[in-house]
Amino acid sequence: MAKAWYLTSRPTGLPTAANFALREQPDAPLEPDQLRVRNLWLSVDPYMRGRMNGTKSYATGFQIDQPMTGGAIGEVIESRLDGFAPGDQVLHMGGWRDGGVIGLDMMPNKLPAAALAAGMTPQTFLHNMGLTGGTAWIGLLRVAAAKPGDVVFVSAAAGAVGSAVVQIAKAREMIVIGSAGGAEKCAWVKDLGADAVIDYKAVPILPALARALENLGKAGIDVYFDNVGGEHLDAAFAVANDFARFAICGMIDVYNDGKAQEMKYLIRTIPARIRMEGFIYTDQFIDCMEEFYADMGGLIASGAVTIRETVHNGLDATPKAFLGLFSGENIGKMLVKL
Amino acid sequence: MAKAWYLTSRPTGLPTAANFALREQPDAPLEPDQLRVRNLWLSVDPYMRGRMNGTKSYATGFQIDQPMTGGAIGEVIESRLDGFAPGDQVLHMGGWRDGGVIGLDMMPNKLPAAALAAGMTPQTFLHNMGLTGGTAWIGLLRVAAAKPGDVVFVSAAAGAVGSAVVQIAKAREMIVIGSAGGAEKCAWVKDLGADAVIDYKAVPILPALARALENLGKAGIDVYFDNVGGEHLDAAFAVANDFARFAICGMIDVYNDGKAQEMKYLIRTIPARIRMEGFIYTDQFIDCMEEFYADMGGLIASGAVTIRETVHNGLDATPKAFLGLFSGENIGKMLVKL
Repeated sequence: MAKAWYLTSRPTGLPTAANFALREQPDAPLEPDQLRVRNLWLSVDPYMRGRMNGTKSYATGFQIDQPMTGGAIGEVIESRLDGFAPGDQVLHMGGWRDGGVIGLDMMPNKLPAAALAAGMTPQTFLHNMGLTGGTAWIGLLRVAAAKPGDVVFVSAAAGAVGSAVVQIAKAREMIVIGSAGGAEKCAWVKDLGADAVIDYKAVPILPALARALENLGKAGIDVYFDNVGGEHLDAAFAVANDFARFAICGMIDVYNDGKAQEMKYLIRTIPARIRMEGFIYTDQFIDCMEEFYADMGGLIASGAVTIRETVHNGLDATPKAFLGLFSGENIGKMLVKL
Repeated sequence: MAKAWYLTSRPTGLPTAANFALREQPDAPLEPDQLRVRNLWLSVDPYMRGRMNGTKSYATGFQIDQPMTGGAIGEVIESRLDGFAPGDQVLHMGGWRDGGVIGLDMMPNKLPAAALAAGMTPQTFLHNMGLTGGTAWIGLLRVAAAKPGDVVFVSAAAGAVGSAVVQIAKAREMIVIGSAGGAEKCAWVKDLGADAVIDYKAVPILPALARALENLGKAGIDVYFDNVGGEHLDAAFAVANDFARFAICGMIDVYNDGKAQEMKYLIRTIPARIRMEGFIYTDQFIDCMEEFYADMGGLIASGAVTIRETVHNGLDATPKAFLGLFSGENIGKMLVKL
């Protein structure tokens, strides 16, 4: 019998294991347009924290005493959906569970056979060819309208989204400054091609950013890709060039504590004519899906965009993997392998 | 002999009279392409505070021991510039002085005879047909892309810019909530047509804004036109609808104190996909000048856009008029009449 993780209470501040419970899922015969899958890979992502709040946030939040959802790769074991057959590998939104019934509301998509045949791993569709790579690509190239020669600052650059931003930006001939927490993560970001890397756990971010710019012979940043908020965001305001664009993807610094952010340089919005814009992948993905797959597929195939995976094993480990996102445990993409 | 106000020291925090000195200007024969004018009206505006800082701010700051500049209306008394003759009234940037030599760098523009003949006062080109009206029009319609039916929140709604925003928005069938400090200003904003007015000196802004929305049967705001920053801006983040646009025109709350702004609701940038953009009138004015004059001229002629003027008399009063902007002294446009 399939099992799924349920949200049993809404976290206040940092979630804990006590907010979740693993429960058996009732078996049911398939209705038309449904699949039964056995999941192979589950994704855990910072955005899921926002969906755990009861307050007005993303359009559809997680409901109490309902199974959680999220990106997953499954293998079809039974199908009443045209075009899907047992053995097919599918990307769908029925994560946080080891399998079960997947309807059209879970947006099942067959992984492209050509990509798999060329050696792309299935879980790539949970990161660089999926949510996190798509978020990086849309945020950098569409929301921030970054172009060759721009100086791009990206926070949480060793995360799944940040590492993709670094590599896409370098492939497009931008100058990249990344921040990450700790020597190991910083070394990896440097390996990805960043022109400068700041260990924000070792040094205060604003003076380090100013020094990095000076070393690169640059006056300021043209683009900030924000995964962090707080002091990182304020530092970006401090060193923004005129007409800088900030793509606000996440504020992992403040998802859990709800404290006010102290913005000393927000006022530079006016003299520097900064444009700051929050975005969500799903708003924009449909419009650029084909272009994204073609471009990102090429970057991955050529080796220009790679990733590291931080993998937890087994369905039981899912909440632990999720919580690890907020303690900075992951390098690259956090995944659960079933 | 003409006199001009000089910046003699850079203010730290709130400027005082001691930062300025009135000095005689050397008389000089006109060079080609120059005018000699006698000024009739001088403009003082909050943006001038930013230009008094030595730090990186607007492109061209005021220099120590140089005459200040700013919008002014003058009468030509001598001309070596084609198309200008003694008696002409001109808008130019040689303010903070009672007259003198005006070159092309001061951007002299003859006031349109048709507008004056139709009864428009010359000083209208210092407010609704000039910098403040243009700032309102560009910020609301271009930067924030406000459209009929939008819920628009505007701070400092009894100021020169804010009052124009209120009236343009009402003329375009938007729902308008304005904030102003004190009963007299609030009554005027209500007279201008605002659907709700908040006296931010009497009540905390966020709960008052939430209550105003509830009374109007609206879930949130689509547009925020910011003249204030600080708690007003944070409140706007708190009640922003999805895809809200914030046009950041000024942050008069923080021009002088340089303190950090405590942003508790900035994180809503992401789930609500808010776009916040700083802008400066002069960047965009050239591109839309004709459209602005036609549209705003019509609104003024029809009585849809009016103004109140707070007038100080005589060149000596110029610094006092300027400082009054920061103590909330003015209703509508602050002017100096010579």
